[in-house]
Amino acid sequence: MNEYIAIGRSVPHVEGMAKATGRAIYGVDLSLPGMLYGKILFSDRPHARIVRIDARRALALAGVKAVVTSADAPNRRYGVYIEDQLIFAKDRVLYVGEPVAAVAATSERLAAEAVKHIVVEYEDLPPVFDLEAAMRPDAPQLHPEIVPYVAHYSAIKYGNICLEARLEQGDVERGFAEADHIFEDTYQTQVMHQAYLEPHACVAGFDPSGRLTVWTTTQQVSACHAELAAALNMPMSQVRVIGTWLGGGFGGKLKSHLEPIAALLAKATGRPVKITLTREEEFTTTRPRPPYRIHLKTGVKNDGTIVAKQVDLLVDAGAYADHTVGTAGLAMTFAQGPYRIPNCKVEARVVYTNNGNWGCMRGYGVTQLTFATESQMDTIAHALGMDPADLRLKNLCQEGDPIVSTQRLRSVHIRETMEAALAASGYREKKGRLGPHRGIGIANTILNMGLLASSAAVRVNQDATVTILTSVTDIGSGTHTVLCQIAAEVLGIPVEQVHVAAPDSDSSPYDLGSIASRTTYDAGNAVRLAAEDARAQLIRLAAKSLGCSEDEIIMEAGRFIRRDRPERSLSFADLVGISLFVQQGPILGRGSWLAMRTFDPPVGEGYPQPPSGSFVFGTHVVEVEVDPETGQVTVLNVTAAHDVGKVINPAGIEGQVEGGVVQGIGYGLFEELVVRDGVIQNPSFLDYHIPTALDAPPIRAVFVEIPDPSGPFGAKGIGEPPVMAPAPAIANAIFDATGVRVKELPITPERLYWALRYNE
Amino acid sequence: MNEYIAIGRSVPHVEGMAKATGRAIYGVDLSLPGMLYGKILFSDRPHARIVRIDARRALALAGVKAVVTSADAPNRRYGVYIEDQLIFAKDRVLYVGEPVAAVAATSERLAAEAVKHIVVEYEDLPPVFDLEAAMRPDAPQLHPEIVPYVAHYSAIKYGNICLEARLEQGDVERGFAEADHIFEDTYQTQVMHQAYLEPHACVAGFDPSGRLTVWTTTQQVSACHAELAAALNMPMSQVRVIGTWLGGGFGGKLKSHLEPIAALLAKATGRPVKITLTREEEFTTTRPRPPYRIHLKTGVKNDGTIVAKQVDLLVDAGAYADHTVGTAGLAMTFAQGPYRIPNCKVEARVVYTNNGNWGCMRGYGVTQLTFATESQMDTIAHALGMDPADLRLKNLCQEGDPIVSTQRLRSVHIRETMEAALAASGYREKKGRLGPHRGIGIANTILNMGLLASSAAVRVNQDATVTILTSVTDIGSGTHTVLCQIAAEVLGIPVEQVHVAAPDSDSSPYDLGSIASRTTYDAGNAVRLAAEDARAQLIRLAAKSLGCSEDEIIMEAGRFIRRDRPERSLSFADLVGISLFVQQGPILGRGSWLAMRTFDPPVGEGYPQPPSGSFVFGTHVVEVEVDPETGQVTVLNVTAAHDVGKVINPAGIEGQVEGGVVQGIGYGLFEELVVRDGVIQNPSFLDYHIPTALDAPPIRAVFVEIPDPSGPFGAKGIGEPPVMAPAPAIANAIFDATGVRVKELPITPERLYWALRYNE
Repeated sequence: MNEYIAIGRSVPHVEGMAKATGRAIYGVDLSLPGMLYGKILFSDRPHARIVRIDARRALALAGVKAVVTSADAPNRRYGVYIEDQLIFAKDRVLYVGEPVAAVAATSERLAAEAVKHIVVEYEDLPPVFDLEAAMRPDAPQLHPEIVPYVAHYSAIKYGNICLEARLEQGDVERGFAEADHIFEDTYQTQVMHQAYLEPHACVAGFDPSGRLTVWTTTQQVSACHAELAAALNMPMSQVRVIGTWLGGGFGGKLKSHLEPIAALLAKATGRPVKITLTREEEFTTTRPRPPYRIHLKTGVKNDGTIVAKQVDLLVDAGAYADHTVGTAGLAMTFAQGPYRIPNCKVEARVVYTNNGNWGCMRGYGVTQLTFATESQMDTIAHALGMDPADLRLKNLCQEGDPIVSTQRLRSVHIRETMEAALAASGYREKKGRLGPHRGIGIANTILNMGLLASSAAVRVNQDATVTILTSVTDIGSGTHTVLCQIAAEVLGIPVEQVHVAAPDSDSSPYDLGSIASRTTYDAGNAVRLAAEDARAQLIRLAAKSLGCSEDEIIMEAGRFIRRDRPERSLSFADLVGISLFVQQGPILGRGSWLAMRTFDPPVGEGYPQPPSGSFVFGTHVVEVEVDPETGQVTVLNVTAAHDVGKVINPAGIEGQVEGGVVQGIGYGLFEELVVRDGVIQNPSFLDYHIPTALDAPPIRAVFVEIPDPSGPFGAKGIGEPPVMAPAPAIANAIFDATGVRVKELPITPERLYWALRYNE
Repeated sequence: MNEYIAIGRSVPHVEGMAKATGRAIYGVDLSLPGMLYGKILFSDRPHARIVRIDARRALALAGVKAVVTSADAPNRRYGVYIEDQLIFAKDRVLYVGEPVAAVAATSERLAAEAVKHIVVEYEDLPPVFDLEAAMRPDAPQLHPEIVPYVAHYSAIKYGNICLEARLEQGDVERGFAEADHIFEDTYQTQVMHQAYLEPHACVAGFDPSGRLTVWTTTQQVSACHAELAAALNMPMSQVRVIGTWLGGGFGGKLKSHLEPIAALLAKATGRPVKITLTREEEFTTTRPRPPYRIHLKTGVKNDGTIVAKQVDLLVDAGAYADHTVGTAGLAMTFAQGPYRIPNCKVEARVVYTNNGNWGCMRGYGVTQLTFATESQMDTIAHALGMDPADLRLKNLCQEGDPIVSTQRLRSVHIRETMEAALAASGYREKKGRLGPHRGIGIANTILNMGLLASSAAVRVNQDATVTILTSVTDIGSGTHTVLCQIAAEVLGIPVEQVHVAAPDSDSSPYDLGSIASRTTYDAGNAVRLAAEDARAQLIRLAAKSLGCSEDEIIMEAGRFIRRDRPERSLSFADLVGISLFVQQGPILGRGSWLAMRTFDPPVGEGYPQPPSGSFVFGTHVVEVEVDPETGQVTVLNVTAAHDVGKVINPAGIEGQVEGGVVQGIGYGLFEELVVRDGVIQNPSFLDYHIPTALDAPPIRAVFVEIPDPSGPFGAKGIGEPPVMAPAPAIANAIFDATGVRVKELPITPERLYWALRYNE
């Protein structure tokens, strides 16, 4: 029995019909009167001094309206963690794909042509591609000018090391001394592109008063607004950011990207300018998931009890720090995985190189870390002769456990997800009985839930509909639908009566955005609070109108009823009319939410990431078949159990899990941006294989619904966890099938082929 | 000494620079890709049956994309008080200027040409222009189909009478029996056009999902939204209205006007359509102030005490009721003027005719009524041998007096405005000593303050600026500046840090709009409440951060200070950072306001208008010189004293008073739409004379500042009162100069010339 009217129901996505019928207006569809088209000239050198830029031939082309370079941009560095970035390379380029100049012209084709006519004279400088080499004091320095990044838990930057940090709990040396076995393994992950289907697109235009409006495809309207203003050295009040519909983001559309360049072109020409990226530009000039080298040293008792763990993370930032230092911080936070490990130490270094420009992707650094953690769990189990599931069950973390980030775990339901996944997959029955070349693997996940601030307003309209004001864009995950369900549930009205206004920095309340699995939990809580605020006003009005006290009003089937005299009641629409024309005034609810430090007992200070509101857990079980002749892996099925607190939209959450699992399979088996001497070798969907429908196995999504007291109607979030488990679960299943352990992603047929040969 | 940091200071209008430099984007400046231009075919008959509309020749013109008529419009009547209106005339036209069809074409010139090629075959019907004739049962019936308008205080519609209403207090017959003198006079006012300098302009476009967006020049975004949806028979959630900048409104840009027609053309063509009116169309097809015939019967004691009054209002609605019935209702409310009259009866009839299509204008019906009331006061004073000022002073209304509308007067400061105006003008010294052909006249005003609902949100931004969300457009009165001042004062920050987001029905909280002198009072209160809500959140956060209780926090110079340890304080910007990243969440304040019935003791039920929050009073003293040879009147100077509660923006309020006085002079002396057989004879600024700078006398604005406890920082409003007094004050000054009483507006030279001759 569903006690709710809107929560827990498979409401079609509110944007679904428009998207399915091709009617949705994305950034690339935008057109303004007098609009020009922008194209960017990207560096083709990994490290070089810019001697001279000569745009005369480009400007001579009829229809070319402007060329802008660093000379036209404010000399102000910006960035999410480290302010090391400029709109255009100035003096030096640091990677192949770095913006050097941009053209605005009357057509996109002409702009692309004009870019080729800009002559850049470079003087090549020695590049550095290798992380060990980059850390040497005599390495070419990418950012001699940057002030080091210092935080509580870290670290002085020196040379190309942009983050060096350490966290510790217990005494890891004593732990190792107590261990019966010590396991040391090194894992390597790849550069993975977010491969959203909608390319970056934005339109920037100045109004005659000098105010900038930008329509753009961003996961973070509020943050894009702040970063764009910072990049342009403009007050935020002179900048307006309107979020367009998004065709996926996955961490690839955070804050600003094309917006500052489009704005500079718009300023130079006095006309609106649109920039869209080609798919090749997407692959070569955006900010994919950084590669991690992860060294794990784990001390274990004979009975399988883990007593100590040391984790070393070595992260390639590429040329600018962007989110890479943040991903390392979150990976550090979860160095233990979802396990109780009394002695744990984690060290991370993030290093500038000329390999490219990396950012972050779904699961942040925890996706990389989970591959290592969960792979080694199997290695340990195998060495101790234990079933990998049993080793995990023995070491699971528990409610209230401290972790290295100084937080204490809350809402821990990893045992439930393991039990659910094992049962639903038939793991116990299948293990060892799958026949030749087939294997079954398991992987657990842990992630934080709740990141920084959300706010929302709920406006009750004249026609008894409700509008939600939020800065959260729906990146395709169904966020807006979930927000409508939450507001509808609180107000006791049908979901169809609730709408979400388009996110717009001029009018939408602040929200950190559609990142970090946070929208259901954080934005959902803000909307819940806003709707509760509106409901309180409605109840007050109903009580006044029906002549009783507020606690005598009950809400049922969209009516506000006097408990003691049920024949006296008012509908939602009645109250709207009364509020506008009789008493109290229009109903407008507001909600503000910041999960961290609001709990009792506190979850801890949370280094290096801000403290979380809660935590979310999951377990995947994967079956594979390996072709021993070719190394080709076929994923036969996936069982994905997640501890989601409460399912708001069953159809929506299944979609989220299925999408995440398939993307996780891509991470595990196919996807890699191959970089050679700083040049990406496979910048197209022909050479960069993402899973297609043919690669998608049957997926069984299982939901553990134990309401989280801090979540809206008990819900946590599900954005990232599904992508984190498949790669290690597949690696473990391959090991189960073949006895071969591959520690480097992706596990391509070639890589597995040679591993099988080498192993024999 | 000003105790405030933002209130009471002459802040330049926040939109002033953009307007003064020509950079402001008005509706007429809007352009969308693929946009078409619309033109409307208006009826040239006062009353006729539409036999046939043949658009073939128009549609044959290259570039003409569509012609729409009533056949394309929903068959659903709408209207503000009476639902008697259709988008296009259907079957019959009822006035010259009624929309019959509209064209969309690729240029405005082509659209205008195409309109001429639409053939409409009419069968003329007998028109009715005379009000007495229109009320006869055998008169041609304009709206046989309309359900009569019934309200508490009124009245069954019969025939062409669309409103018949009566209010009474005391026993008027007994009052007349007690009177020593009875005065009966009839006054006639004219059709006055609002003559805003910016013509109506709107752009309507459907997005591919079928949702309508309209950019339009409206005083009422929220109401336009509702009426447009009703007219188009669409759910409100499928309609979006965005308010553009306004170049004046004065009651001429209420709710919807061109929007439904532009929307129908956009629907028919699948492209955005812009319609702008020519000045001739403005004069002939919009909704000017209706003409009133006002009969006053007043019973007075020998000592000047007024004991009874009977007021009969006969109002020409034109062909559709629109706001005319509302203007009559408000005029009824103030039948007594600002005077204590124990026995009073008022009756009003509003009558459909084929004269035109009238609406309302600044001062609603009270402007018309004030001309009659204040003219007759002088007539009575003269007859009794009293000074007109003394007669008024003797009869002034007082705090708590009941009036015919069942309300009780509050915040009554008419004595103070009279004393201020008499003193500032030197009335006592000048009266009788001005020399030949010069005269001095006085007139008082009363108006309600506060009408229905306002709401607003105050968003504290990442950069420590503040955004106000409101549906109130600034029609040129400085409303947005006043709202910024109110928010700045509450939050203790500079006015420059506060901005108003563009009104947009998708995101702005509901507000009744920029009408009825209400924005400072109603929207100002909503913004005050929203800012106070935000401030409470800031104080709570400051207390938590500084480790004290909320009542120990004092705000000073933009800082939140611990009272007992003043060295411990946080700035506004500090708190914004803490809210986003440390605790509590983003600051978002909300305010909701509905003045009526919120007071103790209650102001009454308020018929026929909703009850008011407060009342506002004023006194003008005018000096004129009359040329006895030509009848030409020169206004020498005006002293205008208004009881405004509290001046928020001295420069702004002076501008409001000066503009109102000049418009009132136009009403008194020049402005009249001359209608002959239903045809407006002077539809241009050449023939319809509005005051120019040369007609504007020196104006001394005096403000009585006695804070109203219900107003924001004590403020009432000032939008309409300044326009109400000049006409009767001028008429009284003319009488003082010449001994001739003119009871018909405007007092043109011709009219006065003949009156002078006739009188001699």
